[in-house]
Amino acid sequence: MTRPEPRKDAPEVAALLAPDLQAMLAQGAAVVAAETEELHPANLADIASALPADQILALLRALPAPRAADLLEYLDEELRTSLLEEMTSSQAAALVSEMTPDERADTIEELADERADQILSALGSDARGETERLLDFDPNTAGGLMTTEFVAVSQDDTVERALERVRALARAGRREAMHAIYATDGQGRIQGVLSLRELLAAAEGTKIADVAWTDIVRVPTTADREEVARLVSKYDLVAVPVVDDTQRLLGVVTVDDVIDAIVEEQTEDVQKLGAVQPLETPYLQAPFWSLAKKRGGWLVLLFVEEMFTGTALRYYQNVLAGAISLVFFVPLIVSSGGNSGSQSATLITRALAVGDVELSDALRVMLREAGQGLALGAFLGLIGFVRALMWGNGYDVATVVALTLLLVVTTGTLAGAMLPLAFTKLGFDPAIASSPFVASFVDVAGIVIYFSIAARLLHLG
Amino acid sequence: MTRPEPRKDAPEVAALLAPDLQAMLAQGAAVVAAETEELHPANLADIASALPADQILALLRALPAPRAADLLEYLDEELRTSLLEEMTSSQAAALVSEMTPDERADTIEELADERADQILSALGSDARGETERLLDFDPNTAGGLMTTEFVAVSQDDTVERALERVRALARAGRREAMHAIYATDGQGRIQGVLSLRELLAAAEGTKIADVAWTDIVRVPTTADREEVARLVSKYDLVAVPVVDDTQRLLGVVTVDDVIDAIVEEQTEDVQKLGAVQPLETPYLQAPFWSLAKKRGGWLVLLFVEEMFTGTALRYYQNVLAGAISLVFFVPLIVSSGGNSGSQSATLITRALAVGDVELSDALRVMLREAGQGLALGAFLGLIGFVRALMWGNGYDVATVVALTLLLVVTTGTLAGAMLPLAFTKLGFDPAIASSPFVASFVDVAGIVIYFSIAARLLHLG
Repeated sequence: MTRPEPRKDAPEVAALLAPDLQAMLAQGAAVVAAETEELHPANLADIASALPADQILALLRALPAPRAADLLEYLDEELRTSLLEEMTSSQAAALVSEMTPDERADTIEELADERADQILSALGSDARGETERLLDFDPNTAGGLMTTEFVAVSQDDTVERALERVRALARAGRREAMHAIYATDGQGRIQGVLSLRELLAAAEGTKIADVAWTDIVRVPTTADREEVARLVSKYDLVAVPVVDDTQRLLGVVTVDDVIDAIVEEQTEDVQKLGAVQPLETPYLQAPFWSLAKKRGGWLVLLFVEEMFTGTALRYYQNVLAGAISLVFFVPLIVSSGGNSGSQSATLITRALAVGDVELSDALRVMLREAGQGLALGAFLGLIGFVRALMWGNGYDVATVVALTLLLVVTTGTLAGAMLPLAFTKLGFDPAIASSPFVASFVDVAGIVIYFSIAARLLHLG
Repeated sequence: MTRPEPRKDAPEVAALLAPDLQAMLAQGAAVVAAETEELHPANLADIASALPADQILALLRALPAPRAADLLEYLDEELRTSLLEEMTSSQAAALVSEMTPDERADTIEELADERADQILSALGSDARGETERLLDFDPNTAGGLMTTEFVAVSQDDTVERALERVRALARAGRREAMHAIYATDGQGRIQGVLSLRELLAAAEGTKIADVAWTDIVRVPTTADREEVARLVSKYDLVAVPVVDDTQRLLGVVTVDDVIDAIVEEQTEDVQKLGAVQPLETPYLQAPFWSLAKKRGGWLVLLFVEEMFTGTALRYYQNVLAGAISLVFFVPLIVSSGGNSGSQSATLITRALAVGDVELSDALRVMLREAGQGLALGAFLGLIGFVRALMWGNGYDVATVVALTLLLVVTTGTLAGAMLPLAFTKLGFDPAIASSPFVASFVDVAGIVIYFSIAARLLHLG
């Protein structure tokens, strides 16, 4: 078989297909290994995923161990877990021991406890100890994301000596990225950082301490993954060193894991905005009742919150009975308050998340949103006024509708803006004050405002 | 002054303060340059931002040109633009010519047209041509994100020769990242890729063509930044090569720009979910009326959509008049449909965005959401039934409320799930079918369902 031609506009579609792979498997391990050698492991994983489980297992056995570990890493979590269930413990241990320490820990974490223990016991004692240490960290912290394979050189080394060490590590088949090189002192404490490029550029004979940067961005093992992501984004880093209390270098979080963390955090944020408990699994893989539970919790909470609209309407039933046409505007008024509240809540929650707004800006935000609410409310009030007249209502009802819209939109806007700030101040996640929560709160307020104005202006109730 | 001690838990807070910087400025350029030499430019930018504009200008003049360019790059867009307005064209040109080509183009793009032209004219002809070429690309595409400084070596070179070339480039003070090295043929077409680590690990005498990977992830200049981000995430890349139709290497998108793009895309998605047109500027910097316009457009659209609830209520006014207590449940029913629709719309839109769901899954999604809707609707219906009885309604009204909730939640769930798929199928952004849009649609449906059931079961209307 010839090498696939460079692909022009669809580089992510592997040129090889599952039937080709099956044919190679039939020809023996050496053929598969040689013919798939140049494929990116993510592409090989895409093709392999189309095969039945026993053939994927055959493929894993046919490939050289480091390559098989790469393939396993790029498979879907669900598939990876089921494949590891079907191997013997020693086969599984041999495979995962070829992974980088952070991937190995992540892979074992996904397994059922019993299976995880079996594979851990089958690992060599060094790898086992290292994996168990990594498993102890919360997976959403720097400790849980870091790998323990990094390149540290002595700050007293010369540039040539450090470069020799880097080359030796690279030749020994170390598989972790080497984008940053860390300079440490005799106690393993981090003292400097430099890129491989800077090491290559440095004049021979220079000491590492003289070329490394001493303004080092670092995090403790307990740093939240959002904080790690923020630092990577702010400082344009490709790796963040993780240190203990004494500044000893324990590991490194690499940018690929940070990107995965950013995407997961974003999915959680979006799901909170849509009033769903964050799913831990892709949508189609989430079990039916676990999905229903995660949605039901929020729906019931909002339902109970929303019941107060009924309480408010009952309270004003005399006003209602006096002018039944007021009812026609109830959903319109309620939803206008809710929508404007959602807008503000979304804007402010996001601005807090990316650091555009801080707690100290609260007053500025309040004034700004009050202005926005008055402007938007006046505009919607005008449309509502015209619409009420068109429906044959008198100027009195139209005025009630217009005034209500002005006040409800302003209330919604202010509540939507201030609730996320209040939650932050109280130490909660501002996303809890997500748009549906604010909207339901404003719905009740809207009815109270509407009928209070109606009772006053129409002399009802 | 002594070097700042390693900072333990707040590495992002610079140890230096604005008054220190002012004191150094008073002592002359050499002092400032030497004392701030080790600071990460992002930290130096944080401190400088606290100074008045004339002192930031003095600081930029005091620093060596490459360092001043770094500082300028890390300042806020607004501040950077105003500083560049205050310099002479030749001063500004001298500064931006020290930036990497992609940063230079981004910086000039932010300026008013006239100022941008003045600075472009003051650049050397090479830098001007390169910048103008980059400015021609849409900033949201690979062409707009890429830098034109990358390391390409001939595929026929030996490893030593390639390494010599990399070292020479690094020593010449090339400032772009060198995480990936590209192998090209005589026509500049990309033929392989390898990491600096792989180059260092390769045995001497080997040809680059024999160690480079040929399964290269690459994009055309027109690739959307979301697509670039997806590839970086899928393949764990630190850089993506950008090629023309003939596979000639034009530039490279680096991971730091991809992270910025991911965060910006996410902000846009969240703002769409909250029914706000994406803001291009941070919340507090957005001009008041431009913000009001971006919110008002959506609010008015939703308001008009929501007016149909009034039309529906008017249509059923006889039913209403026959049983006024039905009104108390209107906001509750309407919002339950809206909330369950929002949940589905959020889940499916996000699942489409991250690739967990595809168009071909439409039937599976529909069945799943129908099931979810029935389960959640039955549960809310039960609560509503009990609540209606507690409010003193008869079994007939309670049954109407319960049946309505079952149907409305199922309708909301199905509409919320299918609209994003339908929009995708029609070639629109599924985020258009964002939760408030679906919610307003379902509000109207909810009223029709409610009063149709009431008319039938209570023999009204």
